Amino acid sequence: MSLSFTKMHGLGNDFVVIDARDTDPALNAETIRGLCDRRFGIGCDQLVLLSAPTLEGADVRVRFFNPDGSEAGACGNASRCVVAFVGGTPTLQTAAGLLPTARNDALVTVDMGLPGLGWQDVPLARPCDTLTLPMHEDAAACSMGNPHATLFGDAARAETLGPDLECDPLFPERANIGFAQILSPTHMRLRVWERGAGLTLACGSGACAAVVNAVRRSLTERTCTVTMDGGDLQITWRQDGHVLMTGPAVTVFHGTTT
Amino acid sequence: MSLSFTKMHGLGNDFVVIDARDTDPALNAETIRGLCDRRFGIGCDQLVLLSAPTLEGADVRVRFFNPDGSEAGACGNASRCVVAFVGGTPTLQTAAGLLPTARNDALVTVDMGLPGLGWQDVPLARPCDTLTLPMHEDAAACSMGNPHATLFGDAARAETLGPDLECDPLFPERANIGFAQILSPTHMRLRVWERGAGLTLACGSGACAAVVNAVRRSLTERTCTVTMDGGDLQITWRQDGHVLMTGPAVTVFHGTTT
Repeated sequence: MSLSFTKMHGLGNDFVVIDARDTDPALNAETIRGLCDRRFGIGCDQLVLLSAPTLEGADVRVRFFNPDGSEAGACGNASRCVVAFVGGTPTLQTAAGLLPTARNDALVTVDMGLPGLGWQDVPLARPCDTLTLPMHEDAAACSMGNPHATLFGDAARAETLGPDLECDPLFPERANIGFAQILSPTHMRLRVWERGAGLTLACGSGACAAVVNAVRRSLTERTCTVTMDGGDLQITWRQDGHVLMTGPAVTVFHGTTT
Repeated sequence: MSLSFTKMHGLGNDFVVIDARDTDPALNAETIRGLCDRRFGIGCDQLVLLSAPTLEGADVRVRFFNPDGSEAGACGNASRCVVAFVGGTPTLQTAAGLLPTARNDALVTVDMGLPGLGWQDVPLARPCDTLTLPMHEDAAACSMGNPHATLFGDAARAETLGPDLECDPLFPERANIGFAQILSPTHMRLRVWERGAGLTLACGSGACAAVVNAVRRSLTERTCTVTMDGGDLQITWRQDGHVLMTGPAVTVFHGTTT
């Protein structure tokens, strides 16, 4: 079946956006894997499916799928792209809840909501302090709609430690693993090994999790610039607990499959 | 500037095809690098530019560009895609000369012309026997419009040996390096480290070069199936010296940049 889509990226974290608000493209895990393949398909870090909202107060429902066909709870970079795709400042309905949005010229801000700080929120496999994980004293965890762990220290360890940590038994739903180097109280360097996708150029929800965990450990201020391989995001953990993520969203091309 | 293109692949060796027969998209090395980028652009192993032919007997002029912006002399998998794109059995005008084509249902055959067997043809940096290269007794070289070396033996060496061999001083224009394992007189396994692109799922001209070099070393018959990571090609080194390459060509999607 022919399928129309838009290719977008946020800091090089790239997405195939499919607008199914008026049609049903009948996607399943196999077709998603095919579309996400970079050589035999379109190619992307995640596929983003838009549909009509089912909750009051939402303007569009958004679902995120990994290249392996599994569904992700939230993706910050993709959420900014959805705002640019839909236009205006829509409220997004995601598996992580309703996300209000804002704009400042080319920069898009998404309210990523409240982080989950309890062990059941992440989730972890058993009760423990999410601020110091048993597997590594430099690791903290929180949920940003999907499970995140942040390892503070050398960011060059992402390739070597990422694959094993993603699948550590402590994470019953696996986890995204961020490797954060604190450069100053308002600046960190971050690389993220993403669950089901591997190392990407930038991970928006991972940047939010890293700043939340850094603030909890008194390593940074509540507003912090996060530099990833694909570029910078500004993250603010507001006093009311909401996490705001601000950064670019770029439309690369529109396409139709044959 | 908005640009229309078609994404195609031959055995997972993937291409952005731009039809400039009626328009001039004004591409330069920088725009080509941007279009070839898999996250910030469209993404492909090579960009294929079609324009009006300048030689008698040709139906379309075809130029091939690597993701680093450099121009390639020929690409077998891309040539098959061009035939499927243009329709019929067009004669292709490439930097390697005129390439006649044929079809059998979904399979496309491209006449890749005569291999260059002399040291000046490849080219090599100094006079030597192209059947046994001085750097490695298992290595032979020939030109299929672009410089190819074939290393017979374990194909798993592609990642480790490819980068250095590509840039060996013996190849003043660098070279594509094929790693060929002979399975039977009519079947080989091949992996190719491509100049300017690295390891790809399949390399059509590399498959032609590997069979030519195998026949010269009495390792296979003149018609041989070449199994690459992306699938199979059938190569025939005809008695009149022409090399025929037969395989699939798939259109994935049509797109327009923003």
